[in-house]
Amino acid sequence: MPAKDSKRSLGALPLLYPEPVLLVATYDGAGKANVMTAAWGGICCSEPLSLMVAVRPERWTHDALLERKAFTVGIASESMLAAADFVGIVSGRRYDKIAAAGLTAEKAEKVNAPFIAECPVILECSLEQSIRLGVHSMMIGRIEDVKADEDCLDAEGRPDPAKVAPLIFDAGTRGYYGIGKRLGDAFSVGKALMQGL
Amino acid sequence: MPAKDSKRSLGALPLLYPEPVLLVATYDGAGKANVMTAAWGGICCSEPLSLMVAVRPERWTHDALLERKAFTVGIASESMLAAADFVGIVSGRRYDKIAAAGLTAEKAEKVNAPFIAECPVILECSLEQSIRLGVHSMMIGRIEDVKADEDCLDAEGRPDPAKVAPLIFDAGTRGYYGIGKRLGDAFSVGKALMQGL
Repeated sequence: MPAKDSKRSLGALPLLYPEPVLLVATYDGAGKANVMTAAWGGICCSEPLSLMVAVRPERWTHDALLERKAFTVGIASESMLAAADFVGIVSGRRYDKIAAAGLTAEKAEKVNAPFIAECPVILECSLEQSIRLGVHSMMIGRIEDVKADEDCLDAEGRPDPAKVAPLIFDAGTRGYYGIGKRLGDAFSVGKALMQGL
Repeated sequence: MPAKDSKRSLGALPLLYPEPVLLVATYDGAGKANVMTAAWGGICCSEPLSLMVAVRPERWTHDALLERKAFTVGIASESMLAAADFVGIVSGRRYDKIAAAGLTAEKAEKVNAPFIAECPVILECSLEQSIRLGVHSMMIGRIEDVKADEDCLDAEGRPDPAKVAPLIFDAGTRGYYGIGKRLGDAFSVGKALMQGL
């Protein structure tokens, strides 16, 4: 854990590690299921349990979100690499990109939104508020339920990250990565350092 | 990319994949450097380029952030596993946990905040706004500059995720993971599916 003598200034860049690959799904005004890929997002509150995804107003998903006040966030897994990239390139305004990507939209249980069935983990969300920051709006969603494929769960019924195999986005080199191996237990591996207090 | 027949409902849980391990550093009212670990956060706007970290009001960092309106976010790397976990367990109110963790605080260049020198990548941020959601406040920071260790950079001067080796947090199994291998180029691997439009 060496502290390096010098760091190079790179300017203002969105270099947070790791960044997710989130498939945000909504029904548009005509009731058509649509999905977009978002790497700008994360959990933002424990209670009420909420997540944030940043969506540009010109995205087809943006108005659908405000109108329906419901969306799902699907975790894109390694096997969905091409599809997840594709739905981030093409607009749902012109195309049925879910079909073109070979993805399946199903209706969520708790909210009025579709979910992408190929995603191993889905978060069903109701829109709590939308906050315009600049070119993006932060969409704050309350997590109403999480659904996971049975074969992703460990013996205790929790998703096993190695089986979820989430895609990881890297904004710096514009690439996708997989998740690596487990390194230790949280709220535990640091306890040894308490001796230094 | 099979769509599974059924998904199991797990209830409302913060199961976003991947989640980061962010070291949020501030100067407190007395000018002492402090740091906390945050897994709730992410990029939230491209212009102005901003990130969000969620901080509980009872955290020592919370008031320091509001007072100084400046912070840094350091990316915790694999070699910092125990230290990153430790500073998430212990409060800076009572302890100089940076010293106890064997970490080094240095003053940032662009903002009035310290950074953890051991982090391979640092984002220097000025606080734009604080939004109380519930038990957490979303701290929205404008990214003023990114600094990276020279030996993390690739030939084009961009951080190489394999060299940054960011820790990944898993809220489901309460564990830390590493990053895996590169799977493909973003805004590129999905183009093959355009034939289906």
